[in-house]
Amino acid sequence: MTIAPAALDAALAQVNSTLDQSVERLKALLRIPSISTDPAFAADCSRAADWLVEELKGLGFEAEARPTGGHPIVIAHAPGEGPHVLFYGHYDVQPVDPVSLWRTDPFEPKLLKQPNGDTHIVARGASDDKGQLMTFLEACRAWKAVHRTLPVGITILLEGEEESGSKHLAGFIDAARDELKADIALVCDTDMWDQTTPSIVSMLRGLVGEEVEITAASKDLHSGMFGNAARNPNQVLADIIASLRNGDGSVAIEGFYDDVAELPAEVAQQWQSLGFDGTGYLKQVGLSLPAGEQSRSVLEQITSRPTCEINGIIGGYTGDGFKTVIPSKATAKISFRLVSNQDPDKIRAAFRAHVQARVPADCQVKFTEHGGSRAITVPSDGPYLRKALKALGEEWDKPAVISGSGGSIPVVGEFKRRLDMDTLLIGFAHVDDAIHSPNEKYNLSSFQHGIRSWVRILAAFAD
Amino acid sequence: MTIAPAALDAALAQVNSTLDQSVERLKALLRIPSISTDPAFAADCSRAADWLVEELKGLGFEAEARPTGGHPIVIAHAPGEGPHVLFYGHYDVQPVDPVSLWRTDPFEPKLLKQPNGDTHIVARGASDDKGQLMTFLEACRAWKAVHRTLPVGITILLEGEEESGSKHLAGFIDAARDELKADIALVCDTDMWDQTTPSIVSMLRGLVGEEVEITAASKDLHSGMFGNAARNPNQVLADIIASLRNGDGSVAIEGFYDDVAELPAEVAQQWQSLGFDGTGYLKQVGLSLPAGEQSRSVLEQITSRPTCEINGIIGGYTGDGFKTVIPSKATAKISFRLVSNQDPDKIRAAFRAHVQARVPADCQVKFTEHGGSRAITVPSDGPYLRKALKALGEEWDKPAVISGSGGSIPVVGEFKRRLDMDTLLIGFAHVDDAIHSPNEKYNLSSFQHGIRSWVRILAAFAD
Repeated sequence: MTIAPAALDAALAQVNSTLDQSVERLKALLRIPSISTDPAFAADCSRAADWLVEELKGLGFEAEARPTGGHPIVIAHAPGEGPHVLFYGHYDVQPVDPVSLWRTDPFEPKLLKQPNGDTHIVARGASDDKGQLMTFLEACRAWKAVHRTLPVGITILLEGEEESGSKHLAGFIDAARDELKADIALVCDTDMWDQTTPSIVSMLRGLVGEEVEITAASKDLHSGMFGNAARNPNQVLADIIASLRNGDGSVAIEGFYDDVAELPAEVAQQWQSLGFDGTGYLKQVGLSLPAGEQSRSVLEQITSRPTCEINGIIGGYTGDGFKTVIPSKATAKISFRLVSNQDPDKIRAAFRAHVQARVPADCQVKFTEHGGSRAITVPSDGPYLRKALKALGEEWDKPAVISGSGGSIPVVGEFKRRLDMDTLLIGFAHVDDAIHSPNEKYNLSSFQHGIRSWVRILAAFAD
Repeated sequence: MTIAPAALDAALAQVNSTLDQSVERLKALLRIPSISTDPAFAADCSRAADWLVEELKGLGFEAEARPTGGHPIVIAHAPGEGPHVLFYGHYDVQPVDPVSLWRTDPFEPKLLKQPNGDTHIVARGASDDKGQLMTFLEACRAWKAVHRTLPVGITILLEGEEESGSKHLAGFIDAARDELKADIALVCDTDMWDQTTPSIVSMLRGLVGEEVEITAASKDLHSGMFGNAARNPNQVLADIIASLRNGDGSVAIEGFYDDVAELPAEVAQQWQSLGFDGTGYLKQVGLSLPAGEQSRSVLEQITSRPTCEINGIIGGYTGDGFKTVIPSKATAKISFRLVSNQDPDKIRAAFRAHVQARVPADCQVKFTEHGGSRAITVPSDGPYLRKALKALGEEWDKPAVISGSGGSIPVVGEFKRRLDMDTLLIGFAHVDDAIHSPNEKYNLSSFQHGIRSWVRILAAFAD
């Protein structure tokens, strides 16, 4: 199917002229407190799924909310000519604590005009991911309203457990493999490069989570009676953590960098040309000096280099005042962001060996696994990618960039592994959207131009 | 006044024949929940003080409960011939949490016969310090019952804030200096050497408490967005803690051992001859290898050598599951036990300089002081000490030993500094008394022979 320029313009005009109604539909979805991690909101999660099913049926999709062991998964099909795309988003949201820090009700969305002229849609999920997923649904609606059909075949998969571990997603993908397989997957859950530059994310880091518990004496001891003589797990744990990093900021675990590849030359060159402001990035959180590998730029440290971070540590007396205790145990939660070919199992084993070698006699160590996923590298070339880049550049009047993301979106790996399907990660969120935090927002411009971006991308795919 | 052997024997016989009533009086005191740290028990603390005042008046003391800014201090005087002694004890007790671990009501004392034939008095404060202080009061009662007078002049000082920081004690000592000054102070708040060997403690370690807070970014960060690049306070704190100890178990702070003296030769020799079982001491808590200075014995490590222990550490996410956060701050509570001439201010300054030198750029460090006291060395010779040793040896049918204690009893330093008065630390507790823990107990034999020990000691002083 060839899309005439006038056909595209008509759909884009439809987006603009019906934006108010699009916002009202987003607000209706935002009012449903679909917090997936808290069982008290299970009915609300189902309600959000049902609301989406009704919307999708209204757009001509064959849609239903499929039960899982947890919250339902919404699946919808609209066959079409030419290529077929699979769109993924999630309708569940993070909890709202501490609710006292919200300036408005988290589940009563507000449009708030900002001093700089922007308008913010403020609510839990406004950005992550209800606002983002609705850009795609509203793009389908605009096209359909003007052309009575969709430009390509579309399957939509909306998950309800993304914020609580996606426990039932992999099984669902396996079971529904035949109806999910498509030419390309689209995920709308990432940021733009900056406020005005669209981006397709081509690299996502993997993640290994580990919990380490060091135990020494059989019970808590009085430091006046056992100080010096009894091994102190707080000290042992600190010694081990200190040994994880070298003085130059690199990770000291043997073989940690073995499977880390250098950036492809063209990506490195593109990054160079973007002039990422590493100092400004750190300055926004009150820092000035990058703490990682001293030979690497801030941008490399946060996207293309692996990490080892101590996310939590606790041992002994941590209340008010003082208690001269030698605790029987101390615990740390440690995570690794992985890149290129790093294998989660291999990194986990290397970490555990590193720790084991440093646990003194008289101490026991217990490891608890908290998940593991490989880094994802989406091919940075290909027909869909090229078309999407061009469409984004036209909508935002600025060339789109291919960027790395420091975070992890495991579903992309599942699509590749289970369905052998590549993904384009295209999102319109901003780094200041306060996702997972109080006063989450989505820029109205992200919403409007996000919808229009998808209209252009789907039209380009049809061409 | 010379005490005839028959006079001593009569008083000792009186102790034995009235032991049941002595136990009943102790039980009455134990039933008063005088938890000094919890304001909810303030009235109970006053009630305990009043109860003791009535007891002391009944023994012929001029006694009163003096108000302080906190809980009252009981002071009682009974002038007498010959030397004058000042006895110190405390009537307040530790909280009872976790109360679910108590097998009996903590404030309904029970006499429980043990499989090995011992009888335990079980209650909060049974050992620390109500049982111990009552050994002295009951010794006075027995002597008085037989002889109508006391063998020496006695002042009694019973504190109600020992378990909550003794905030008003130093001021009270200063204000009451004239009525407190005596030839020797006696404190009953320490352990015997072992189950059958009496002991006078001649060394107490001092204590410096410090809290260190490391702050980096202005808020908690997502490790996917800031990992590597942002300084992680958990890592910084671990690096600092690791730097506090050398590989041989010694403390690495510059100048830490400067004012640490070697044991006097005669004490070292006596300790050698005692055959302290370091391996057995560690084995009782599930350990086998001493963790302190490798050139020192376990006994030295826990009594005559200074310590550096990490009593608490916390930073980042420490709940169930996992959160990939880089926290903005991390905190540790660290204490030092001091020996010989170590100066708390000097040690604190050296520690802070050590930390400051290791805080990376971009991080702030905040120190909070949690008290400081010097080590106490009581002269290991002198007429009162010699008389007390002999009296203890006769009561327990075994030579008493002069020992060090790893703990800290600041009142001893206050007596020396403010009243230039030496103290004899004589106690009958056992290491397994579970003070500060659920199911605290005092052996009935500690109580009985403790009373008899004081009868002998007071008689010896009068001689």
